[in-house]
Amino acid sequence: MTMINGFTAEDAARLSETERALIERRARVLGPAYRLFYEHPLHLVKGEGVWLYDADGKRYLDAYNNVASIGHCHPKVVEALYEQAKVLNTHTRYLHEGILDYAEKLLATFPPELDQVMFTCTGSEANDLALRIARQYTGGTGLIVTQLAYHGVTDQIAAASPSLGAGVPVGDFVRTVRAPDAYRLGAENVAQIFADDVRAAIADLRRCGIKPAALLLDGIFASDGVLSDPAGFLQQAVAVAREEGLLYIADEVQSGFGRTGSHMWGYQRHGVQPDIVTMGKPMGNGQPIAGAVFRGEVLDAFGRTARYFNTFGGNPVSCAAANAVLDVIQGEGLMANCAAVGEYFKAGLQGLAERYPLIGDVRGAGLFVGVELVTDRASKAPATEATARVVNGMRERGVLISSAGPAANILKIRPQLIFQREHADLFVQTLEAVLKSLN
Amino acid sequence: MTMINGFTAEDAARLSETERALIERRARVLGPAYRLFYEHPLHLVKGEGVWLYDADGKRYLDAYNNVASIGHCHPKVVEALYEQAKVLNTHTRYLHEGILDYAEKLLATFPPELDQVMFTCTGSEANDLALRIARQYTGGTGLIVTQLAYHGVTDQIAAASPSLGAGVPVGDFVRTVRAPDAYRLGAENVAQIFADDVRAAIADLRRCGIKPAALLLDGIFASDGVLSDPAGFLQQAVAVAREEGLLYIADEVQSGFGRTGSHMWGYQRHGVQPDIVTMGKPMGNGQPIAGAVFRGEVLDAFGRTARYFNTFGGNPVSCAAANAVLDVIQGEGLMANCAAVGEYFKAGLQGLAERYPLIGDVRGAGLFVGVELVTDRASKAPATEATARVVNGMRERGVLISSAGPAANILKIRPQLIFQREHADLFVQTLEAVLKSLN
Repeated sequence: MTMINGFTAEDAARLSETERALIERRARVLGPAYRLFYEHPLHLVKGEGVWLYDADGKRYLDAYNNVASIGHCHPKVVEALYEQAKVLNTHTRYLHEGILDYAEKLLATFPPELDQVMFTCTGSEANDLALRIARQYTGGTGLIVTQLAYHGVTDQIAAASPSLGAGVPVGDFVRTVRAPDAYRLGAENVAQIFADDVRAAIADLRRCGIKPAALLLDGIFASDGVLSDPAGFLQQAVAVAREEGLLYIADEVQSGFGRTGSHMWGYQRHGVQPDIVTMGKPMGNGQPIAGAVFRGEVLDAFGRTARYFNTFGGNPVSCAAANAVLDVIQGEGLMANCAAVGEYFKAGLQGLAERYPLIGDVRGAGLFVGVELVTDRASKAPATEATARVVNGMRERGVLISSAGPAANILKIRPQLIFQREHADLFVQTLEAVLKSLN
Repeated sequence: MTMINGFTAEDAARLSETERALIERRARVLGPAYRLFYEHPLHLVKGEGVWLYDADGKRYLDAYNNVASIGHCHPKVVEALYEQAKVLNTHTRYLHEGILDYAEKLLATFPPELDQVMFTCTGSEANDLALRIARQYTGGTGLIVTQLAYHGVTDQIAAASPSLGAGVPVGDFVRTVRAPDAYRLGAENVAQIFADDVRAAIADLRRCGIKPAALLLDGIFASDGVLSDPAGFLQQAVAVAREEGLLYIADEVQSGFGRTGSHMWGYQRHGVQPDIVTMGKPMGNGQPIAGAVFRGEVLDAFGRTARYFNTFGGNPVSCAAANAVLDVIQGEGLMANCAAVGEYFKAGLQGLAERYPLIGDVRGAGLFVGVELVTDRASKAPATEATARVVNGMRERGVLISSAGPAANILKIRPQLIFQREHADLFVQTLEAVLKSLN
């Protein structure tokens, strides 16, 4: 199957000999399930701060990769990794201060009722574990997610990730609801519609003899198209879930660790209280660490009847990296930067929207930004083809982004938290040049 | 629930103030699902080669941890990690040589029909992905595993890991078969019994309307009690699975990367051909990297209809670490060492068996060794309580092992591949001292 912003064989003509050879090696040894970004894939050799460099020495402003969130190859993370890797790397069945120091620091970013954390290596594992625990706690199996959600790739979580496409069937235990899309449903309606949809999905699960376990929501609905506002729109749906005995799992793999600027966790913008929060990607700035935070009560029965051991989860090296990341976010004021530069950046994009009718909507929180492209502002018809041209045009001009949404017409923009005004300016100028070139 | 060789609150009396405080912090922030090894848990601060050091500076011969398989904090791995972490850490949607160099080197350790590899971060993810792909390929869902198998902790794989205990129900898609235990079933019978059990399990799945997808087997049946011989005992069962249209998935998370001495992969001792091989633990000597190797044909349909992206899976840093591990294993003759020292070590243990009737059986391959303790050699009654005393006695005397098997009466011994004769001698002397102290 194809993928939004994926390389396809039809694009092979523009490749260099070296790139063609690398792509052939990939197909031979990695098989058919791997994908590359862009019509002209990137061959990267170096990363530093907000910049990535290709094999020809060309520099790209990275406004997409939300893993190296405090900057590529951040020296404090690299040194923390190195210093711990030289001394000890074991697992959680021995006592070690590193995991406890980090766990306490991480939990301090949550309200007191979210008081226990378990570590995994990937966001997929975190969501899978959250689902296991929600099932045990509620005695149900059913799960509610949005129509184009992405939560990960384990068997059960892939079945709850409709954005993986028709080739990955949605599980019989899953019901999907329309994403809370204020641009299309109306800002004034979105909370009510979302709550009504959740209520209907719960009823449908019950009608099919499936007891619902949880409502699982991405804190900023990234794959649904970056749906951020109006802040608070989750409250009614979460209240419905709670009332009906479901747990609310906040998937903060994408929206967590300060990216939304105003809050450490994306769900907090909506003034709701999750039972479980999952996290991953930027947690170790590239080191594979992820986890889930729980209300203690939710974990209690699982912990009494089961045990959980993730060989690499919470190891001293990964915890050292994660600890450094949190120190940098908190110690260097990156959330404040993210909020301020995010506002400045969005204003720049809104300025473009005044001049380019292709831009139907600019939205987002902090440095998680969506720009929806439409062929007609009145009908809001998705400008799918133009979006692909913009994403690839930006890449050619040295700025990395991708797209999202049911019609792949929303620019998905996620610069590092260290993004500065000069980078926002460069982004806006480049986007304008690309928009001009479309005509 | 309790765990084999797990710390329980009853053991709290022997703890120091510091240890008690650490354990309290763990309970508070990590919750109830985490476990510690030993009656007296270890508080580790340093690792080097075959040695681990606790906070009091006491040294332990590590004959248990099969992750740091080429030695704790191996400088070549640490430097590879550091050098790559300084330069670039991204993901598989950009072109990068590191993953390809490693993939090619790794695939070269397999017969040519196993020609494609996919990377994950954990063995759990590798087994989960193998199951997803086996299901898509066969159109079935059923899975056959051994009675006390452990394959991982995702929702689906935990349901196929009966060793997790009664609190984690075996899935309705799973059938368990008796492990191929030559000591109890007889070396001459074990292959036939195992094949018959697999055939019966397939029939039972079908009788329940469940189409079987795969036979999933640990290459050395670690949690079932380290079942290694006679080499070849898998052939009939694998033939039955193949004949009935199931895939055979070799779980090499524990038995892979040279640990069995004679072969790079544990299943190879049995002269069988898997459709999928999963791997993990020692792959990055502690860096979270794992993966699955496939016959290309098995991957084909999955890759055409689905895509797979594991954010941290196959990243340049993890690949650099894994590449260094494979270089060390191959370049420093660690398999030959493992085979030679393994034989020497087993001979030493067999020497003890001649003098201590508690030892019912010494088995294993390379440096994966099982020592079964029985209260009576004729009846083979499991010496469960004595085994716990031996494991804890060894720990007190500075040697780390654990136990396994349905009655927790089998010493599970997995020293690093760099184990030398002097370490084997120290192990055997220590075990003898502990055995003497039992009376």
